Amino acid sequence: MADIPANYKAVVYDKSGEVSTKVVELDMPEPGPGEVLINLTHSGVCHSDLGIMANRWSMLPYPTPEGQVGGHEGVGKIVKMGPGTDGSSRKVGDRVGVKWIAAICGSCPPCLAGYDALCFNNKTSGYHHPGTFQQYVCSPADYVTPVPESLPSDMAAPMLCAGLTVYSSLRKCGAESGNWVVLLGVGGGLGHLACQIASRGMGFRVIGIDAGSKKDIAMECGAELFIDFEKQNAAEEVKKATGGLGAQACVVLTASNGAYEMSIDLLKFGGTLICAGIPEGEMKAITKAFPQIIIGKALTIRGVAVGNRREAIETLEFAERGIVKTHFRTVKMDGLTKVFEEMDRGEVKGRVVLDLS
Amino acid sequence: MADIPANYKAVVYDKSGEVSTKVVELDMPEPGPGEVLINLTHSGVCHSDLGIMANRWSMLPYPTPEGQVGGHEGVGKIVKMGPGTDGSSRKVGDRVGVKWIAAICGSCPPCLAGYDALCFNNKTSGYHHPGTFQQYVCSPADYVTPVPESLPSDMAAPMLCAGLTVYSSLRKCGAESGNWVVLLGVGGGLGHLACQIASRGMGFRVIGIDAGSKKDIAMECGAELFIDFEKQNAAEEVKKATGGLGAQACVVLTASNGAYEMSIDLLKFGGTLICAGIPEGEMKAITKAFPQIIIGKALTIRGVAVGNRREAIETLEFAERGIVKTHFRTVKMDGLTKVFEEMDRGEVKGRVVLDLS
Amino acid sequence: MADIPANYKAVVYDKSGEVSTKVVELDMPEPGPGEVLINLTHSGVCHSDLGIMANRWSMLPYPTPEGQVGGHEGVGKIVKMGPGTDGSSRKVGDRVGVKWIAAICGSCPPCLAGYDALCFNNKTSGYHHPGTFQQYVCSPADYVTPVPESLPSDMAAPMLCAGLTVYSSLRKCGAESGNWVVLLGVGGGLGHLACQIASRGMGFRVIGIDAGSKKDIAMECGAELFIDFEKQNAAEEVKKATGGLGAQACVVLTASNGAYEMSIDLLKFGGTLICAGIPEGEMKAITKAFPQIIIGKALTIRGVAVGNRREAIETLEFAERGIVKTHFRTVKMDGLTKVFEEMDRGEVKGRVVLDLS
Amino acid sequence: MADIPANYKAVVYDKSGEVSTKVVELDMPEPGPGEVLINLTHSGVCHSDLGIMANRWSMLPYPTPEGQVGGHEGVGKIVKMGPGTDGSSRKVGDRVGVKWIAAICGSCPPCLAGYDALCFNNKTSGYHHPGTFQQYVCSPADYVTPVPESLPSDMAAPMLCAGLTVYSSLRKCGAESGNWVVLLGVGGGLGHLACQIASRGMGFRVIGIDAGSKKDIAMECGAELFIDFEKQNAAEEVKKATGGLGAQACVVLTASNGAYEMSIDLLKFGGTLICAGIPEGEMKAITKAFPQIIIGKALTIRGVAVGNRREAIETLEFAERGIVKTHFRTVKMDGLTKVFEEMDRGEVKGRVVLDLS
Repeated sequence: MADIPANYKAVVYDKSGEVSTKVVELDMPEPGPGEVLINLTHSGVCHSDLGIMANRWSMLPYPTPEGQVGGHEGVGKIVKMGPGTDGSSRKVGDRVGVKWIAAICGSCPPCLAGYDALCFNNKTSGYHHPGTFQQYVCSPADYVTPVPESLPSDMAAPMLCAGLTVYSSLRKCGAESGNWVVLLGVGGGLGHLACQIASRGMGFRVIGIDAGSKKDIAMECGAELFIDFEKQNAAEEVKKATGGLGAQACVVLTASNGAYEMSIDLLKFGGTLICAGIPEGEMKAITKAFPQIIIGKALTIRGVAVGNRREAIETLEFAERGIVKTHFRTVKMDGLTKVFEEMDRGEVKGRVVLDLS
Repeated sequence: MADIPANYKAVVYDKSGEVSTKVVELDMPEPGPGEVLINLTHSGVCHSDLGIMANRWSMLPYPTPEGQVGGHEGVGKIVKMGPGTDGSSRKVGDRVGVKWIAAICGSCPPCLAGYDALCFNNKTSGYHHPGTFQQYVCSPADYVTPVPESLPSDMAAPMLCAGLTVYSSLRKCGAESGNWVVLLGVGGGLGHLACQIASRGMGFRVIGIDAGSKKDIAMECGAELFIDFEKQNAAEEVKKATGGLGAQACVVLTASNGAYEMSIDLLKFGGTLICAGIPEGEMKAITKAFPQIIIGKALTIRGVAVGNRREAIETLEFAERGIVKTHFRTVKMDGLTKVFEEMDRGEVKGRVVLDLS
Repeated sequence: MADIPANYKAVVYDKSGEVSTKVVELDMPEPGPGEVLINLTHSGVCHSDLGIMANRWSMLPYPTPEGQVGGHEGVGKIVKMGPGTDGSSRKVGDRVGVKWIAAICGSCPPCLAGYDALCFNNKTSGYHHPGTFQQYVCSPADYVTPVPESLPSDMAAPMLCAGLTVYSSLRKCGAESGNWVVLLGVGGGLGHLACQIASRGMGFRVIGIDAGSKKDIAMECGAELFIDFEKQNAAEEVKKATGGLGAQACVVLTASNGAYEMSIDLLKFGGTLICAGIPEGEMKAITKAFPQIIIGKALTIRGVAVGNRREAIETLEFAERGIVKTHFRTVKMDGLTKVFEEMDRGEVKGRVVLDLS
Repeated sequence: MADIPANYKAVVYDKSGEVSTKVVELDMPEPGPGEVLINLTHSGVCHSDLGIMANRWSMLPYPTPEGQVGGHEGVGKIVKMGPGTDGSSRKVGDRVGVKWIAAICGSCPPCLAGYDALCFNNKTSGYHHPGTFQQYVCSPADYVTPVPESLPSDMAAPMLCAGLTVYSSLRKCGAESGNWVVLLGVGGGLGHLACQIASRGMGFRVIGIDAGSKKDIAMECGAELFIDFEKQNAAEEVKKATGGLGAQACVVLTASNGAYEMSIDLLKFGGTLICAGIPEGEMKAITKAFPQIIIGKALTIRGVAVGNRREAIETLEFAERGIVKTHFRTVKMDGLTKVFEEMDRGEVKGRVVLDLS
């Protein structure tokens, strides 16, 4: 067993509602019943961490507590097993991941139906439960995600939220391999991962839609066709590429009501619109969700909320095989405030992974 | 083989855009390649026949031709096989039904995917193809619906449109037997059939919603609970009945935007809204089809457009077993104008079946 | 909170490999991490308890430990919550059930795929883990099955093994409501429950097959047709009833190689054979599982091993609604040896429920 | 419209039960109701043609008529539309394919369920219906398979039987992209096509099993691992590669009872065995199809009989994209006897395509 110190370092949100973090020393926790203690080495820094820190995400029911440890994409090694973990599949030394949903009750109706994110008793990392911007964290033995041996921890981290969300969305999009799938927001944080998984992993034929500057990343990530929605008529281009029929599925991966409005016209009869991107601001109905069109074209509209623990494992398997990668740079814990400031000014390219060592 | 006369009687829409019909004599047609000639004995009279006759259905692309034979729920016996029907499963003497979709090409993409109503080359009974208000009609041998021996023709007729539509909707609603299913417009022409099939045929637990006067018919048709949407808070009542969770599926069977607006709040996490009723007038998005809610509750919204020929056969099997029945009265061909006038004033109770003998 | 005594009564298998039980006093256990302490009031007595007690079940890897508390269908009230159960959906006072699979790890591949019985780390009640023939038992908070308020405990108990198994089998049989389903061994312990759930709960049309003496129970339980396999040609009778096509599904609910042999010929093209009954003795391939026939009729053969915790909840919902009932009589703890002796002589009619009070 | 001659050339089986063919002149047929006349330019030569010609295929109910035109993988252009094809999606000039199943009735239960090969009234090319070893053939407008513009006719032909069969098998194997799939007989006529579609088209991870000489072709076709069943322990090797769990699916693509026997042990819990290869000689049950194992591992065994017309279109789409290719050489009509003689001696490498020009 690893040598566990009495204290460790963590990054907390030190001023409620402001873009500000501070490195602090915390006392080492003891893993509770069913929990493991993990020595985290890396954590992804997600755009939603910024929203949570600054209380900008209007959907969340209450402000983030001051002094909260943020982060929800952590990877590290188990160093101690808590009581009641004898029958667990995990053991000391296993490398594991901690996700946005840190824990579920396992027995409420959504849990039993595989909707982890909807668990009536879930704990959310870095918001109302201490997150992954820290060197040690306790987490349920049966809920942490085992990380495949050959997948580096820094590459695994960003897969635990963005990767998982798009993986789950694509699994539920109703398309079969060989079908056309449109990704709206293909060049974004979710989109470029979706593009890789869809084309290289699942055998879909991908049409990417985004602003023109994202064409290169879309094509590198496996899109067969890129549509610049600012300059081209997306519906016409999609029809042209798909023999006049439209796409079997359309996945909205950007937080834009405009993308939702555009999506309905891109679909083939019997096609599926997957809602994954969450628009900010006041809620607006999907503009063209007309019963007449939904019926007349036999369409399906389906919402996907993060993925569950099984899908997290499968996402890491795709990453292990090199099917999906993310561009990232690594920063130290004391550099996190600066990262968030850049993020706030829209200057962050790719992904940032926090080095917690 | 039956004795086939040289002429026969039909009811046509004699004044374009008006509520007016006339009984005429027509020359006996010869069944074309792949067709059978059917001696119809009964045809259902559907509310949409009124809309088609009077050109009130704004979704339809062009007016109904003057002199068109209306009707799309016909039942009768095959009296002659056309050329190229040797390999057919049908033969002279078989009792068969003719549906809203009178013929499909069988080889376009929607046909191959089982979406008969979306066939790129379909023929629609009583609108742009002669319908079932006549004693004889030609129809493709492989597209007519065989009628089970013990099911009377007058009972079978109304199943071929309304029955088929609700059957198909319920099959696709994503609920399993034992789940709660809400039917909006439970007391209507579609609704009361759906209620019987859902409760007695498929093992769903049905909550019916409609105006208070429809309570009796809903309960007779198998609803466990009836909600008067004018006097009760539907969302609260559905929650109460379903242990706080909401219904697994919600089927809108009425042509009302208000019903669609109400529906979203009635669903359980992971639940499905089936769009079947087609609102008239200008198209309006489903009011609460917010991406945030669709994602947050992992909902599905799905459109169902009539059913296909396989589902038509299954619908008649349910009718044969007595699981679903409709109240109807029978009128003679020369009484059809009067029926449409009553329908236009909203005075028709139950269903009317035309006796074509 | 209930008043918890220091000791309590249990029935143990006191002579390894023999049909013999003894009531003993045991020390009250303390619920471990994640566990609850349950005050059991009833336990079903299953035929497999006899096999386990007497070490007759050759598939089991090692003999039952002497002094083991048997039983695997227990119902009672939670009287104490163990450490780490704060986030649980259960609480003191909840009435819950304990099943054949007493605990799963929740994180091995079969667990994540919903195959509880295949969990690599499962604990089996009454075999290698103390069972339900006792007044108190500890069990994981997130794995016990909540019992619906209006379902009496003695009626709930037998549903937790036999009821669950047949429920899960029927859910996976590939038939839709209105389809013909054949139940082989319809009059037996599994069969008569399957018949009720299939016909009244799921809308299947049931053909029951068994020895002639079981006809009455089959018809009472909802079969449309009964076939006496000793006197009738099952394949011919099934064809006759199903329009010459055969049944969509065939569920073998009896531990007989002969039933498996018979089953293949009863299926419709595209039909499914569900393997649920486990033949004793040397393993024998399903006699007519010829690739040529499986391909030529596009058949599916599928094994179902008990059900999972979600299905257990759904089974109790069906029982709560009165859709499925079992005949049982109640005996006291000191009468258990006598029950097993009767069972061993094949004299037990219906089911026995142990009154643990 | 093309210039249609009065006569044309065909190759017939001229000596019943012997390996002998003859080029003959036939009168030009007139397309019947619903049919098109096709000017064939290429036909694949399949190993089953040999069996049919020589009456070696014991499953077939009666001998092949003397003078029959063989072949069942034809490609050519429509030159004439028969009566009743106005509503068809096909037109003169379309390039189309003719398959093993030349025609279906479209209205019997198997047709309605998508099992074309099980149609009660089907016509089989080159066996009891004139095949594709001829320059002209009549075929139903709605059943011929449209060939994508950029796919050469000689490459399309072999896809219409072997390609279709493996495509359909893989679609039904229950695996998801990223899952391990074992192909038994990976180097054979079916196997090497399956390997390409599975790995490059559907995102499966392929383990190929065959005799050692087939390793190169398996690896070229996309297998990640090859197992020489004559020298290696297949079950152990599969376990090693799959983290000890076994494969999600196992597809038997060779006509060998031994392959079926081997297959059961290669499966993961919850896995699926697809039966596609049809063993010759007396029928034998799948040796290890024990109910105890099927139940204990929750396995599925499923038969797949050719594919249907929708799957044929999808197979050609995969071929058009270059995902699946077959090695073939082209021979003239008068060289066909020699090809069959080589085939009979096991000397044919890859595929032969008949040039019908």
